[in-house]
Amino acid sequence: MSLVVQKYGGSSVADAVSVKRVARRIASYRRANHEVVVVVSAMGDTTDDLIDLAERVTPSPPARELDMLLTAGERISMALLAMAINDLGLEARSFTGSQAGVITDSTHGRARIIDITPGRIRSALDDGAIAIVAGFQGVSQTTKDITTLGRGGSDTTAVALAAALDGDVCEIYTDVDGVFTADPRIVPVARQVPVITPEEMLEMAASGAKILHLRCVEYARRYGVPLHVRSSFSTNMGTVVAEASTRSFPISPTEMYVPPPTRPEVPVVELEASLEAPLITGVVHDRSQAKITVTGVPDVPGKAAAVFETVAKVGSNIDMIVQNVSIPAAGQTDISFTLPVGDVAATVAALEAAKSSLGFQELFADDQIGKLSLVGAGMRSHPGVSARLFSALSGAGINIEMISTSEIRISVVTRADVLDDAVRAVHSAFDLDSAEGNAIVYGGSGR
Amino acid sequence: MSLVVQKYGGSSVADAVSVKRVARRIASYRRANHEVVVVVSAMGDTTDDLIDLAERVTPSPPARELDMLLTAGERISMALLAMAINDLGLEARSFTGSQAGVITDSTHGRARIIDITPGRIRSALDDGAIAIVAGFQGVSQTTKDITTLGRGGSDTTAVALAAALDGDVCEIYTDVDGVFTADPRIVPVARQVPVITPEEMLEMAASGAKILHLRCVEYARRYGVPLHVRSSFSTNMGTVVAEASTRSFPISPTEMYVPPPTRPEVPVVELEASLEAPLITGVVHDRSQAKITVTGVPDVPGKAAAVFETVAKVGSNIDMIVQNVSIPAAGQTDISFTLPVGDVAATVAALEAAKSSLGFQELFADDQIGKLSLVGAGMRSHPGVSARLFSALSGAGINIEMISTSEIRISVVTRADVLDDAVRAVHSAFDLDSAEGNAIVYGGSGR
Repeated sequence: MSLVVQKYGGSSVADAVSVKRVARRIASYRRANHEVVVVVSAMGDTTDDLIDLAERVTPSPPARELDMLLTAGERISMALLAMAINDLGLEARSFTGSQAGVITDSTHGRARIIDITPGRIRSALDDGAIAIVAGFQGVSQTTKDITTLGRGGSDTTAVALAAALDGDVCEIYTDVDGVFTADPRIVPVARQVPVITPEEMLEMAASGAKILHLRCVEYARRYGVPLHVRSSFSTNMGTVVAEASTRSFPISPTEMYVPPPTRPEVPVVELEASLEAPLITGVVHDRSQAKITVTGVPDVPGKAAAVFETVAKVGSNIDMIVQNVSIPAAGQTDISFTLPVGDVAATVAALEAAKSSLGFQELFADDQIGKLSLVGAGMRSHPGVSARLFSALSGAGINIEMISTSEIRISVVTRADVLDDAVRAVHSAFDLDSAEGNAIVYGGSGR
Repeated sequence: MSLVVQKYGGSSVADAVSVKRVARRIASYRRANHEVVVVVSAMGDTTDDLIDLAERVTPSPPARELDMLLTAGERISMALLAMAINDLGLEARSFTGSQAGVITDSTHGRARIIDITPGRIRSALDDGAIAIVAGFQGVSQTTKDITTLGRGGSDTTAVALAAALDGDVCEIYTDVDGVFTADPRIVPVARQVPVITPEEMLEMAASGAKILHLRCVEYARRYGVPLHVRSSFSTNMGTVVAEASTRSFPISPTEMYVPPPTRPEVPVVELEASLEAPLITGVVHDRSQAKITVTGVPDVPGKAAAVFETVAKVGSNIDMIVQNVSIPAAGQTDISFTLPVGDVAATVAALEAAKSSLGFQELFADDQIGKLSLVGAGMRSHPGVSARLFSALSGAGINIEMISTSEIRISVVTRADVLDDAVRAVHSAFDLDSAEGNAIVYGGSGR
């Protein structure tokens, strides 16, 4: 008997038929004698519908009340899912985030989990019941008000519950089959990745892969929770995110799901064979960034820092930074950095306002950029990776505007309109293309 | 400064426009420096929509999960209402039944309130905020599960909060203008009743008037909470339900609502003038009852009791009972009783099953009956009321099938198809007809 935490996104429970399909999957785990805790998001478009309703009442809803409103969405989906499971002859009990012991700070709309006190969940499991928990929500430790966790909140709830309950695995169900070596919409020959380390997954999430949120992967790595990304619409074996040492999985992915009435043919995966890490795990792209360039910054100690202090004050999330090698004779330098497109306006305004004190000459904002990142634990011991990357891009006639690297990642900025070509060229150059094409849509859940 | 508890039914908050209208009314009370606690039902058809959703998942949802599902409805309406009030520049905080301290037993679907611990509501009021509370719901004292209170639950929540907070008045907002001397759809000249005693209101509720639920009136009488029934769609002064001694109302109904931007002309009501109770408060009719007659019951001690024990076992709610005067020579008697139409099938089946032990001859069920009740504290001291009632009915050619009386009520059963005529004849015979007609629809809220 293992303890399995499963998370189902909104697309997996979009309507009554989907709820019943998910219930059958959950029931098959319980019938195989596992303890099951399920975290569920709001059905399909419920959250958007509720936001629309709020906007019809007021253009600026108070955050506390918006959280109260939005948490009605999970309340509906979790109760329906519990009903559907009970209809299959198994006991299920639904719990709000508050009842499940998801304790947060009081930052409405994007609260952080402070603690998990899963006493009622543990009791339900001890009684033989399946516990259904509302994702995306908790209760403030200080005010006792209902909070929401913001983007990736349901995934994070699932991982946090798995950690608190000492779960054997946390399964994240979504509408895609797992992690791929590239977005199959751009690279039709992209392959699914059967196993990936948390570090690699972190780099991919940070580089723009939408399948798992950075926060959830960070949490899983910190608490050593094995993650398993799967589709609720198929019996595909998905992608396991775990350290090599924990990859001897408590439940083999192929044993996990026995959909009634007949068991489908599921390919057996040799997890052990994957332990020899490939050079590159995948190619991730991101179109959501813009670039700001500040020219003629006085080359005096503290001036570059002053630029970034100004940017930090408006809360912009800076990713890559490049400072031109300064020419001592000129006495000035140029600084470029990338940031989310949505942060550009506020950042430009803040910099222009501080222009005289910062002493720069000009400011350029450019939202026509693309970022390509190559991620793989294997590149640690392979010095030739950047050379092969640059050569692949130049071979495809693609210019590199910025470069940044970590131990297991290289990111480059290109023009936006050549990003797809860049992804295909790099994917091919690192031998990631599979023999047969793959048409599965690559995307991610909103919360 | 008074403490006012207001309850708004689902029709009063059916959409964003209605929510904003109700918010303006609430704000006018707060701006007049009153402390305001608002109990709100789910918007319009939300509850029915949620029940439909549950039925698409399973024909027999577990009661615990159905309660979890349905309470999402009030969560939505209360958050929107709080947003709308905040939009008017006043602070409002919404609370679930559980957060508001509505402690119940664990009978899902029709829980009873055991206790109210309104600490968080009191704190919100002390902070100058308006407290918005979800109606119809609470939390089980023993299981800590979310419960719903069943029909009339939101009204009862409002009264219970008013009692616990030592409120000055509990206003029940609905879509009708108050209590009338008869249903204006049947008696166009029916008049609105400005004041009524709790005892009269209880008799009217028990006799089939749908404007207030029996449970809510009972609760208000027990705790001495003055009730004020009003329409959220008008500035009509409504009906006050209170003992004569408490009718010197802390807030005059005419002062209560100052809708922005201009104050409308509201007729001033002389509450004191109403203290001389009229002979009759109103005529109530009820078409939801059926009659069962059991003939040839042995006239032996205990046999009639055995008939009603059999009926009680199936949970039927018996209202009126008539036993024919028994003729000793015949050694047998006939028994008739009324009960809700919905209980007839189970009751007939139970009686037929026990036919041999009960020893009766025949069984007749009749759902074509109507019940007319005359209610008024004034009839205590007027012995001629029944005579005038019978004479009015016989004058209209209407036959009386059963009679039952209390100190302040007389009920008679007639054929269903003459019930409207009976109501008009009686209304007129007791001088209740007003000079000008009144076309306001008479009805009640579901929960």
